Amino acid sequence: MIQVIPVRNLPILKKGDDLVRMIEDEVRSGDIIAISSKAISKIEGRVVSLESIRPSERALRIAERLKEDPRFVELVLRESDEILLEFPFILTRRGNWICVNSAIDRSNIPEGLAVLPPENPDESARRIRKELEKRGKRVGVLITDTSGRCFRRGHTGVCIGASGLKIIEEGEEDLFGRPLRITKRAIADQIADFATLIMGEGSEGIPVVIFRGLELLSDDGGAEILLRDEEEDVIRRILRHFRTKGFNSFIEEG
Amino acid sequence: MIQVIPVRNLPILKKGDDLVRMIEDEVRSGDIIAISSKAISKIEGRVVSLESIRPSERALRIAERLKEDPRFVELVLRESDEILLEFPFILTRRGNWICVNSAIDRSNIPEGLAVLPPENPDESARRIRKELEKRGKRVGVLITDTSGRCFRRGHTGVCIGASGLKIIEEGEEDLFGRPLRITKRAIADQIADFATLIMGEGSEGIPVVIFRGLELLSDDGGAEILLRDEEEDVIRRILRHFRTKGFNSFIEEG
Repeated sequence: MIQVIPVRNLPILKKGDDLVRMIEDEVRSGDIIAISSKAISKIEGRVVSLESIRPSERALRIAERLKEDPRFVELVLRESDEILLEFPFILTRRGNWICVNSAIDRSNIPEGLAVLPPENPDESARRIRKELEKRGKRVGVLITDTSGRCFRRGHTGVCIGASGLKIIEEGEEDLFGRPLRITKRAIADQIADFATLIMGEGSEGIPVVIFRGLELLSDDGGAEILLRDEEEDVIRRILRHFRTKGFNSFIEEG
Repeated sequence: MIQVIPVRNLPILKKGDDLVRMIEDEVRSGDIIAISSKAISKIEGRVVSLESIRPSERALRIAERLKEDPRFVELVLRESDEILLEFPFILTRRGNWICVNSAIDRSNIPEGLAVLPPENPDESARRIRKELEKRGKRVGVLITDTSGRCFRRGHTGVCIGASGLKIIEEGEEDLFGRPLRITKRAIADQIADFATLIMGEGSEGIPVVIFRGLELLSDDGGAEILLRDEEEDVIRRILRHFRTKGFNSFIEEG
């Protein structure tokens, strides 16, 4: 049996807070600890005031079409390497991470502020895991974010940073001994997805969820491996081709 | 605290098996029961012999490019309303359900056979829920399948049929009282995703996972609402546009 334990009654987090101290009593060796991206961003001071942002011409143009705050769009552009779609939403790429609005968040934070994703979420996860290890607790740590999806409605959770747990699993042989055609399970994403269901996205304010009984601790690397690279990312390449052919207006035409 | 309980030691399922009788002792009122699509397909007799399939010209052409069994490709074509990509994999649409290979599965089944998804997974979920209700157990039932994803590696779980639980959640107000820009959580997909992690995809053979302590029973409708419709499905429309413009060869060119 697996237990999934929401860590309740944490305060609203702010820069410099010692999250490990706040949660250590709840944690046991063997646990996998899911922490929301936003909690990490807040304690790492990744909160930006939109007042300080001067939008570029491009940001103004995109913002007008989207009826969006141009300062926010400017921030999205600055945090991305490539824009795959400008409309009806901004689909961005940073390295191999493709997401909406460069994963910048404006919910659960005072008006006029925006929360950037952690600078290096794998490193954030590693740091928290190491601190818990110093206290005698061997755990896995993953950082969750929520994301929309192609083809299906509603947001689900994904893992954007991880340390100390299995991230992805190669296929094993099936019941009849043949190699499975389905080759990989996105283990860390599957844990992150359920974690974000328990966290909620609204006012519940549960930034940490503990998984007990999953036997998935491991020395695997970080969450980067969950991202398709250029070569295997067919949809990314089609979107780029589509954009460079100037078909972006098609979306508006319907 | 939430408990997640794999139901072990079930036999390999076959047509006509009474799954409810096999699991009823494990189930309590309030539980949400995740059942793998393949388990449902097997007990509903949705297993097809490829020997009986004569491939069309189109299936032969697509199969050659993919180095795939043309009889399997023919089956995929028959089960779909539209082909959105032929290469490097077959992306199909049936109604609003977009997936690879029409969700037809050949793992964990003897060579030469293929498992079609349940004819009506919402109805399958409803029937099992009703049978458990007759035994005095009020539960939610969802049917899981696994699926690849755009942009990210590895398969995750999705909900393809559901009865008696919350499927999707509209956004609530955030901590600062504004409506969340993130409007919906795909609750049933999030449960299904974690369920498939526990089920495994290989030889573990755990077709049923019970969730206890999730307060998500509800009279919401089926899983269909998790599928984007034509109008809001930007990526689907781009793929179709891309295909009709004859750009399919671009993928091969690289």
